[in-house]
Amino acid sequence: MLSTTPRTRPGRMKERARTGREDLYAVLDAGLICHLGVVRPDGTPTVLPTCYGRIGDTLYLHGSTGSPSLRGEGEVCVTVTHLDGIVLARSVFNHSVNYRSAVVYGRPRVVTDPEERLAGLRAITERLAPGQWDAVRLPTRKELAATALVALSLAEASVKVRQGPPDDEEEDYALPVWAGVLPLRASWGEPEADPALPAGVDVPGHIASRAAPGR
Amino acid sequence: MLSTTPRTRPGRMKERARTGREDLYAVLDAGLICHLGVVRPDGTPTVLPTCYGRIGDTLYLHGSTGSPSLRGEGEVCVTVTHLDGIVLARSVFNHSVNYRSAVVYGRPRVVTDPEERLAGLRAITERLAPGQWDAVRLPTRKELAATALVALSLAEASVKVRQGPPDDEEEDYALPVWAGVLPLRASWGEPEADPALPAGVDVPGHIASRAAPGR
Repeated sequence: MLSTTPRTRPGRMKERARTGREDLYAVLDAGLICHLGVVRPDGTPTVLPTCYGRIGDTLYLHGSTGSPSLRGEGEVCVTVTHLDGIVLARSVFNHSVNYRSAVVYGRPRVVTDPEERLAGLRAITERLAPGQWDAVRLPTRKELAATALVALSLAEASVKVRQGPPDDEEEDYALPVWAGVLPLRASWGEPEADPALPAGVDVPGHIASRAAPGR
Repeated sequence: MLSTTPRTRPGRMKERARTGREDLYAVLDAGLICHLGVVRPDGTPTVLPTCYGRIGDTLYLHGSTGSPSLRGEGEVCVTVTHLDGIVLARSVFNHSVNYRSAVVYGRPRVVTDPEERLAGLRAITERLAPGQWDAVRLPTRKELAATALVALSLAEASVKVRQGPPDDEEEDYALPVWAGVLPLRASWGEPEADPALPAGVDVPGHIASRAAPGR
């Protein structure tokens, strides 16, 4: 179960809240990027897209050691959102979207242990590109030194999900207006080879199978 | 041109910065949801997905009048991100993503003028669901009273775009490793009618054409 804190207690739209830890994992593990929110030294918020990985109840984020948002100072908020469709209602007011979102709050810890650093970076790479860690050149000592890695506990998190048709006002159901959902789907295109790739290097199975799961 | 402020000055990855106002419009006008960052009263950041609309150099966001994030107090950050593909490099370190993102900073203004409120709400609805404003029941006075609308100037904004194949280390190009881009595409599915819809109400053209632009 996800614990309830002042930051994760459902406010509006309580019926959209999901409280299982597996609900949180499902949203995170279906995502490719998150939006990381930090408070700048001047007290104003910044939200930036970035990659992430998960191992158990820890989220990993990485960046350049020069990046100010990953110094492990202060609280952050990490949000992962899947937009699943547009909810087309009989009134403007009841238009909505179908979505799944996870919001994680906490103070990240800078990861210094070499083994955890490798594991965290692997989790981030494998989230974006499963199978690549074992297929490409691994990080050099110099590359590792240039990479900041932080760990964020999943202890304080909330999940919201909206699915299904519109919730219209009782009196609007009689209107001669089409209502329903326009689903939105993300899909992989055909892999595009780097023009610098020598002839004869084929798309490996772990990439080809992702682009065309039906084949 | 987008102006440069301490918050929008490109830090790392300067080559990804776009500086034209039309670049900003292009990213915003291709999006459906944004991630809104605010600083909570306890000083910690919150990032939530929400809908938006644009009219000229103003972004509109709406929410319940009970929602704490839209009271027009304090600075916010609004980020719109399109993930266009995974950049599969010859090394773990050079893996990346192709994306377009816009980040807008500012202090929102609560919109009270009835005409601007209607225009802003229309822009938000039309961003999600073009054509619906003229096809469905318009907001009642009561619904309008329950809706908070804020306007955020696009004066302070930055845009980043990454496209194309990986940037690998010179010595890695000789590796027998496939490299390139796995494109990610968002597409509309077939409209799903509300089960409560009476027989004989067809999907209107402005929705059907969106789901199947080729037909």
